[in-house]
Amino acid sequence: MQKLVSFAGRVVIVGFGSIGQGVLPLILRHIDLNPDRITIVTAEERGHDVANEYGITFVNHALTKSNYKDVLGPLVGKGDFILNLSVDVSSVALIKLARSVGALYLDTCIEPWAGGYTDPSLSAGQRTNYALREQALALKSTEPLPTAVVTHGANPGLVSHLLKQALLNISADCGKPVAAPTDRDGWARLAADIGVKVVHIAERDTQTAAHLPKAIGEFVNTWSIEGFVGEGCQPAELGWGSHEKQMPPDGRHHDFGNGAAIYLMKPGASTQVRTWTPIEGPFHGFLITHSEAIAISDFYTVKDGDKVAYRPTAHYAYHPCDDAVLSVHELAGKNWHMQPNKRLLMTEITDGIDELGVLLAGHAKGAYWFGSQLSIDEARGLCPHNNATSLQVTVAVLAGMVWAIENPHRGLIEPDEMDFKRCLDICMPYLGPVIGAYTDWTPLFGREELFPEDLDRDDPWQFKNVRVL
Amino acid sequence: MQKLVSFAGRVVIVGFGSIGQGVLPLILRHIDLNPDRITIVTAEERGHDVANEYGITFVNHALTKSNYKDVLGPLVGKGDFILNLSVDVSSVALIKLARSVGALYLDTCIEPWAGGYTDPSLSAGQRTNYALREQALALKSTEPLPTAVVTHGANPGLVSHLLKQALLNISADCGKPVAAPTDRDGWARLAADIGVKVVHIAERDTQTAAHLPKAIGEFVNTWSIEGFVGEGCQPAELGWGSHEKQMPPDGRHHDFGNGAAIYLMKPGASTQVRTWTPIEGPFHGFLITHSEAIAISDFYTVKDGDKVAYRPTAHYAYHPCDDAVLSVHELAGKNWHMQPNKRLLMTEITDGIDELGVLLAGHAKGAYWFGSQLSIDEARGLCPHNNATSLQVTVAVLAGMVWAIENPHRGLIEPDEMDFKRCLDICMPYLGPVIGAYTDWTPLFGREELFPEDLDRDDPWQFKNVRVL
Ligand SMILES: NC(=O)c1ccc[n+]([C@@H]2O[C@H](COP(=O)([O-])OP(=O)(O)OC[C@H]3O[C@@H](n4cnc5c(N)ncnc54)[C@H](O)[C@@H]3O)[C@@H](O)[C@H]2O)c1
Ligand SMILES: NC(=O)c1ccc[n+]([C@@H]2O[C@H](COP(=O)([O-])OP(=O)(O)OC[C@H]3O[C@@H](n4cnc5c(N)ncnc54)[C@H](O)[C@@H]3O)[C@@H](O)[C@H]2O)c1
Repeated sequence: MQKLVSFAGRVVIVGFGSIGQGVLPLILRHIDLNPDRITIVTAEERGHDVANEYGITFVNHALTKSNYKDVLGPLVGKGDFILNLSVDVSSVALIKLARSVGALYLDTCIEPWAGGYTDPSLSAGQRTNYALREQALALKSTEPLPTAVVTHGANPGLVSHLLKQALLNISADCGKPVAAPTDRDGWARLAADIGVKVVHIAERDTQTAAHLPKAIGEFVNTWSIEGFVGEGCQPAELGWGSHEKQMPPDGRHHDFGNGAAIYLMKPGASTQVRTWTPIEGPFHGFLITHSEAIAISDFYTVKDGDKVAYRPTAHYAYHPCDDAVLSVHELAGKNWHMQPNKRLLMTEITDGIDELGVLLAGHAKGAYWFGSQLSIDEARGLCPHNNATSLQVTVAVLAGMVWAIENPHRGLIEPDEMDFKRCLDICMPYLGPVIGAYTDWTPLFGREELFPEDLDRDDPWQFKNVRVL
Repeated sequence: MQKLVSFAGRVVIVGFGSIGQGVLPLILRHIDLNPDRITIVTAEERGHDVANEYGITFVNHALTKSNYKDVLGPLVGKGDFILNLSVDVSSVALIKLARSVGALYLDTCIEPWAGGYTDPSLSAGQRTNYALREQALALKSTEPLPTAVVTHGANPGLVSHLLKQALLNISADCGKPVAAPTDRDGWARLAADIGVKVVHIAERDTQTAAHLPKAIGEFVNTWSIEGFVGEGCQPAELGWGSHEKQMPPDGRHHDFGNGAAIYLMKPGASTQVRTWTPIEGPFHGFLITHSEAIAISDFYTVKDGDKVAYRPTAHYAYHPCDDAVLSVHELAGKNWHMQPNKRLLMTEITDGIDELGVLLAGHAKGAYWFGSQLSIDEARGLCPHNNATSLQVTVAVLAGMVWAIENPHRGLIEPDEMDFKRCLDICMPYLGPVIGAYTDWTPLFGREELFPEDLDRDDPWQFKNVRVL
């Protein structure tokens, strides 16, 4: 297989769950790097067999606020790479560590230390991804510090690159092809010119294990159960567009940071929104908070002096696999107290696809979805130790690592600031069918057939139309 | 098997779905009646094999407003029995027909003609079970007309009898055993004396077909899919107790009828409530409208002159089988446009129970659940052509028929007006474990751990605490 880059340093992989195990074969396949230079540091025996299969050193030692420097100290130095694929290990702490020794860094989520998502001593506003992102952005610097890529999985991550390609596609389809802008301002103006009001990260995961239905007292998902439950219990959050006329009654602005997003005073896992993907059609997804929702609204802001002239609303609209929908329903019924059992679907999956993309809506051509329709069968054929969901993430991790190695002095970096072409080129072979599709569907479609609703008929893409109440 | 009663007339069974097929063996087993006196009139071939198995005449002829008199005319006369187990055939029309010829009648649901539940030309208030019940109650008369039992399945039906037994049990457990009251007023005063604020029909169906998970585009349930979708699309409705302090913002009073209930301006299938059953513990159920919610609040009203001195809040809190939860989620995502495929789980069920009972709450002993925990295995052992859900219904149909035959001149009758002892005695052998359990759980349990909520801390059983928002 084609080596994309060669890397002379050591790599320490923190956390070895579905994403860690899935990315390892991709790293070995596409980065020119001796396996004996990789070390896994994780908090349980899970994945030890996979590490052995590839001859990788496996250290079962949970990192904490008080031990992480001691444990990681001997494993990373100048020119090395910290790949944080854990839950419960602070991204900010590891970024600072990497920076202090001169190592590169990448994660797929800005993680707090354990319990940070549901710490009742924090206010709802402090438990948001907005707050976590601000803590990470505080590490930005004008100095040429070692590159630390945050939130570069599928979403957040890949979807930011899909979004750029989607903007170019819509321009071309409108008969006004444009060259890819070269800076933030150019991208934001392009989105404004097209008239994108709303960006949904619209995902429908249909993977299913036909012979092992969810049991009572079990949380089932196609990726990290702790990760999903953690973010599902955070406040629902969304980048808040300039076209929005009405603040949700339970919506709150932050009193710090850039102001690009709002949060709702309820868990994302109990907040549903209307969205659309090509195969599924219209559906209800969960408004789970994600860093990309805030980062995209921030990145695509056009300012007129101090005033926001244009900003899209951006949020996740997630239909996890059916067993996870049931798991969320059960979890809500227990007031968000985690089920006693967890099951991460991998080998037992019998069928399904993960339809994951960006839905750009409210422009002249209606709505446009652009994304991956990777099936479990294709994912298995492409790379071992993955399902359709994880492969979309792990190939993006690979792409982010390659980009970081190629651009080692960029300091703290979000996906929107990276070279989308380079990243997409690396990801494409692993995404299954990547398609674009227009639809005239809007959240007003089929509404009020049985009951009057409080709708804005003049502007279909107002959040109040999108939200399920 | 023991014959409970003998019947000399003919029986016409209208509709032969899960309930019709399940009740047939019970009728033949427990009513002394020649099989050649039974005729099935239904709208499809479904169940023809079961009819053949028992040698019953099977007529595939859908009834409509314009043909039902012609089709049923030759099949029913004085002393016969119309058993309406259909969807889409008007209960009121068949009751009038039965009355006009001198036949007995029983149904398990006050059905409108096809489309009545979702007729957009009707107001939401007109599409309620309250309205359907008022139409039926208008047929009450002081004359000794042929008995017409409405809504006598499991719920509505059996649960009204369980409720009476539960009231007696609580009294006894409080050290104040009482004799069963003999009239409505006596029962209402007993409930008031105990201090029952809330009656949930609390049901958790865990039946599952482990090898045939719900497919996309398929509505799966353990009983009538059309029946469930129809009532799920009606407005949520509840009997509205005298302890309630605050009308829900989307709640509406009717401007006709007895005023015992309110409805919400949204489908029951999108309205969730907190409830509790002994095996499941706390969970979220759907507030599906049901006739018993209204009838129970009405029946247990104590008046002081014209003023309502006491009335319990009563409603359904239904957790259907997991595949049905997923089906509802998908249906909501398609704005209540029915999936193309339906599957009624019967032989493919591999495991599970239907935990169905009444939860009486807000009294000195907290909350008390009393009901059936029938498993699929036990149901299959007890009677062919049933699952756990249908058997709870079909044995209640049998009990209602027996009671009607024994009490042939009572005119229009609701379950609360029947002899609960006689009915329970007939049902008991078919209900699996029937247990009573107290709990200190209330809907305030575990609330506000992560987010502040608008709660009434002084009165746990206010509907605003029960509802999931
Ligand atoms: N951006 C995306 O698209 C995306 C997608 C999926 C997952 N993620 C994120 O990737 C991360 C990993 O996801 P996953 O599905 O592999 O999770 P997982 O639950 O399968 O695995 C988590 C791993 O972290 C380890 N871990 C837990 N506590 C630790 C500690 N204190 N020290 C060291 N290791 C610890 C666990 O042992 C496990 O190996 C999560 O943060 C998740 O939110 C991002
Ligand atoms: N009270 C309760 O506890 C309870 C429980 C379950 C079902 N039910 C009610 O019982 C009824 C039957 O339920 P089910 O599960 O057997 O339903 P089902 O969907 O399995 O069967 C319905 C039957 O009605 C027949 N039908 C439809 N249209 C007809 C027409 N125009 N003329 C004649 N027959 C027609 C169908 O052919 C079918 O045989 C429904 O009204 C349902 O709401 C009540």
